[in-house]
Amino acid sequence: MEVGGVLHMNAGTGETSYSNNSHLQKKVISMTMPIIEEAMTNLYSSTSPSSLVIADLGCSSGHNSLFVVSELIKIVEKLRQESGHQSLEIQVLLNDLPGNDFNTIFKSLPSFQKNLSSQLEAKDAGPYFFSGVPGSFYGRLFMRKSLHFLHSSYSLHWLSQVPEQIENNKRNIYIASTSPPNVLKAYHSQFQRDFSTFLKCRAEEMVTGGRMVLTFIGRKSEDPTKEKSSNSMWEVFALALNDMVSKGLIKEEKLDSFNIPHYTPSLSEVKSEILEEGSFSIDRLEFSEISRSIYYKEYNHSDVSKIAANSVRAVAEPLLVSHFGDGIIEEVFCRFTEILSEHISQENILEITNLIISVTKK
Amino acid sequence: MEVGGVLHMNAGTGETSYSNNSHLQKKVISMTMPIIEEAMTNLYSSTSPSSLVIADLGCSSGHNSLFVVSELIKIVEKLRQESGHQSLEIQVLLNDLPGNDFNTIFKSLPSFQKNLSSQLEAKDAGPYFFSGVPGSFYGRLFMRKSLHFLHSSYSLHWLSQVPEQIENNKRNIYIASTSPPNVLKAYHSQFQRDFSTFLKCRAEEMVTGGRMVLTFIGRKSEDPTKEKSSNSMWEVFALALNDMVSKGLIKEEKLDSFNIPHYTPSLSEVKSEILEEGSFSIDRLEFSEISRSIYYKEYNHSDVSKIAANSVRAVAEPLLVSHFGDGIIEEVFCRFTEILSEHISQENILEITNLIISVTKK
Repeated sequence: MEVGGVLHMNAGTGETSYSNNSHLQKKVISMTMPIIEEAMTNLYSSTSPSSLVIADLGCSSGHNSLFVVSELIKIVEKLRQESGHQSLEIQVLLNDLPGNDFNTIFKSLPSFQKNLSSQLEAKDAGPYFFSGVPGSFYGRLFMRKSLHFLHSSYSLHWLSQVPEQIENNKRNIYIASTSPPNVLKAYHSQFQRDFSTFLKCRAEEMVTGGRMVLTFIGRKSEDPTKEKSSNSMWEVFALALNDMVSKGLIKEEKLDSFNIPHYTPSLSEVKSEILEEGSFSIDRLEFSEISRSIYYKEYNHSDVSKIAANSVRAVAEPLLVSHFGDGIIEEVFCRFTEILSEHISQENILEITNLIISVTKK
Repeated sequence: MEVGGVLHMNAGTGETSYSNNSHLQKKVISMTMPIIEEAMTNLYSSTSPSSLVIADLGCSSGHNSLFVVSELIKIVEKLRQESGHQSLEIQVLLNDLPGNDFNTIFKSLPSFQKNLSSQLEAKDAGPYFFSGVPGSFYGRLFMRKSLHFLHSSYSLHWLSQVPEQIENNKRNIYIASTSPPNVLKAYHSQFQRDFSTFLKCRAEEMVTGGRMVLTFIGRKSEDPTKEKSSNSMWEVFALALNDMVSKGLIKEEKLDSFNIPHYTPSLSEVKSEILEEGSFSIDRLEFSEISRSIYYKEYNHSDVSKIAANSVRAVAEPLLVSHFGDGIIEEVFCRFTEILSEHISQENILEITNLIISVTKK
């Protein structure tokens, strides 16, 4: 299954929308901000650009994407004022798949731009131009040598398609401890093809000296079946689906033919693809950890299972609907929330390992 | 009233959507195609570009916009092959106000691109990149000197706002034979401000030698109160609103405070703004005529009043809802269709005068 026509975050601004269930993703962006700032500072200092083209890949419905964009613009404006340069035009390109809810971002832009202007001290700042770019980042999206800075957070763990010939991954929906070896191999090969395509496309689109900061879910252990943190949420979700099968609410064949187009690479897997492709020099390649238990502290919410389940729903619902139909959605997420609350104290269930990559186009 | 947050064509693909009620606009584009082709041919011949940035302003939900884009790409590909040049990248920028339904265009892009590829003979054609650009064209939208070709059809007769201080245009909703002189003056001044702002912004954004082809509704007579064709549809629509007032369904003050942010300039008004702004040389400045009676012939439909009413509804409904609320919509368009069918044989009621402008950036 190709994901281009199916995968998108839940649209709009309702209870189960991505917009209302992406606090974790915002927190990850905040944690990455020092690396983003470092990359932009190096870009600005080395090139003193008279105009700047910035892209955010996997912008979804935009709250988090616009948060990054506003931070980037503030960094550039600070650098510009410190160096006494003239104002510069910034083009912001917001990318996601064609099924993404761009209307919600676009409608929020006028107030976003007003707020941004009021936060910038310099009266001669800007102008800033915004575009939406619909398409898969596993293909070309932008003109040759047109991009100066590229950011993507929590998008590159999505593959371009479910790996082929993994029908024997029965009762699982991703790599699990009971997955046969060919499943691991198929997922890894798909990641290699996708990530190297991504790098090749971006290498054509970026200017020499351009910077790229990517953050996505990864894993610490080289053996994915041993990974106890990042993958465990899908294992718990598979329990809910299996529960539906045993109650006769989902056909067994239907579950067996469902797998998530998602891969959490190790640091060495990522590094080896970047070196092999060869167009980028690595400035940083790091782990960071985040726990869904931030919901306890940051959002003053006791019902972590419900919030965690909604955060999975916001990203996975369209995929599930496309395979199982929309009749099962309420029920499966109800069960998932219940099962999750039983597992919530289990070691690592709430933990996520992120990979952060900062590279320069050679 | 500023129109930025209110004006947009009816979204989606339903019965009263713009997408399903814009046959007339497509016919106008087809009629203009020889002028578009001439402008693109001159651009290509004089610059032999290695990449091309094309913008369509006022793209709405996209059918007609993508029709123009596919024609433009076919023209460029034909010119390229004839001259034996290498393939070139084309960036297509689709602009409309932030409230426009961009999701519908974006979802149609994958199949559009597939169809386009199958129509192009050259295997090395492309690649083509598509972006949506939300914002008012009465302000800057694109980076400096970034555009080669700009097209806009049936958008520039919309003003940036309803002219101020025309509260005395009672029982009318646009310039009508009973409008006081200050109303005519206010509409004309608003057009002058808006059109000169439009030209200034585009002058900054276009490369030297870039081409711009604009089509919009205009008028033949210098005195707008004498115009019998283009403006008459609004006069008939005002009858429907007045009918609602006399039945107590709309308050008189509410109607008196409503005016359409729309202006149909004469050829000399347009020419004088282009000359005054000074950045563009005029290649063509022409009238063309179209009649809504094409519905009889082209669409094999006897119910012209209903189709004409729907075509007005598709462009004006959001404006009306914002002022009168959505409770009156069905009723007012029902009355409008009835009144229109009584006036349909009236001279010129179905006639529209278009202005076509083809200019080159100096």
